[in-house]
Amino acid sequence: MPNITVEGPALELEKKRLLVKALYDAARAVYGIEDIVVLIHENPPENVGVGGRLIADRHKEAGEFKKKF
Amino acid sequence: MPNITVEGPALELEKKRLLVKALYDAARAVYGIEDIVVLIHENPPENVGVGGRLIADRHKEAGEFKKKF
Amino acid sequence: MPNITVEGPALELEKKRLLVKALYDAARAVYGIEDIVVLIHENPPENVGVGGRLIADRHKEAGEFKKKF
Amino acid sequence: MPNITVEGPALELEKKRLLVKALYDAARAVYGIEDIVVLIHENPPENVGVGGRLIADRHKEAGEFKKKF
Amino acid sequence: MPNITVEGPALELEKKRLLVKALYDAARAVYGIEDIVVLIHENPPENVGVGGRLIADRHKEAGEFKKKF
Amino acid sequence: MPNITVEGPALELEKKRLLVKALYDAARAVYGIEDIVVLIHENPPENVGVGGRLIADRHKEAGEFKKKF
Repeated sequence: MPNITVEGPALELEKKRLLVKALYDAARAVYGIEDIVVLIHENPPENVGVGGRLIADRHKEAGEFKKKF
Repeated sequence: MPNITVEGPALELEKKRLLVKALYDAARAVYGIEDIVVLIHENPPENVGVGGRLIADRHKEAGEFKKKF
Repeated sequence: MPNITVEGPALELEKKRLLVKALYDAARAVYGIEDIVVLIHENPPENVGVGGRLIADRHKEAGEFKKKF
Repeated sequence: MPNITVEGPALELEKKRLLVKALYDAARAVYGIEDIVVLIHENPPENVGVGGRLIADRHKEAGEFKKKF
Repeated sequence: MPNITVEGPALELEKKRLLVKALYDAARAVYGIEDIVVLIHENPPENVGVGGRLIADRHKEAGEFKKKF
Repeated sequence: MPNITVEGPALELEKKRLLVKALYDAARAVYGIEDIVVLIHENPPENVGVGGRLIADRHKEAGEFKKKF
């Protein structure tokens, strides 16, 4: 401990590397503890709702909007 | 915030749409806040234990029970 | 299962009652399962950051802003 | 409730069976409650950071180290 | 990692000691890893809903029922 | 989303401020998203087990050890 869990969208390997390092540095500086575990949970856009609507549907509509103009 | 996380079994897309909307409506009415994120985590039946036994094993036995009679 | 966890601000008892009932109804309708547990986690404003700043500080500044005008 | 969530590496089916049973027995003995749900979340080594570095990278380097000697 | 989180009711200190030890033994035997963190989250009965109703209300009614008879 | 949850020991207000800012900066740089919520959960040492023993007991023993020498 501390344990840090990030719930976010999918991420490339190199970005995971950066994220884990940056969160570790941030938490170590504040807690003064080195024993820190970071978990990255990747959530597909059809499993996340923002404001009552799936991100998958928001993206789709935004895409269709772009195609029109 | 608020953030709502649902740990449940797999769900079809249309049901995710309904769930995210219904949970959002429920939480918005109570908190009076619109900035609500809903996360749906889908768990396979071999990763969930109820009463000390995997749901996968419970289903299997229930299925075999049905085949017998 | 399903289990629903809500991370939000403090809530009065009567609102907890409403929230638990509304989330239960929503999840039962979608999953078709009655065995649903809802956990309400109440987070003080100094333990939540939005956009890099504590909610406690956001509220304080908004309050001071109001006093000025 | 109680609900127990385990965040760990991937696990074979037989080990999941053992884990769910052992955690259930442990929690039932302490809480005196039988209604216990156990969730096993399996995390790939590229999604977990320990001490600021991905487990995937730690394993890789450990493997290369072994090949050298 | 692994990390184990238990969401349950309040617990006496001696029971926490037993729980942490028993969950550790169970997880170590299955994963073959010693680096295990257990978090106990204690939830008051007015923050947990089962079947759409707060545990606090269920207990109260059960108590009133007992007083009547 | 992304949502970041930190499970750690108690923290002073100024340190919470720093933590929330540093985690936000780290996540925003990697995800390229500004809509980030950070939750800090403070866990008392009698609710956390490391290696099968409560942190509260580990600290106590370490303290008694110091007093002896």
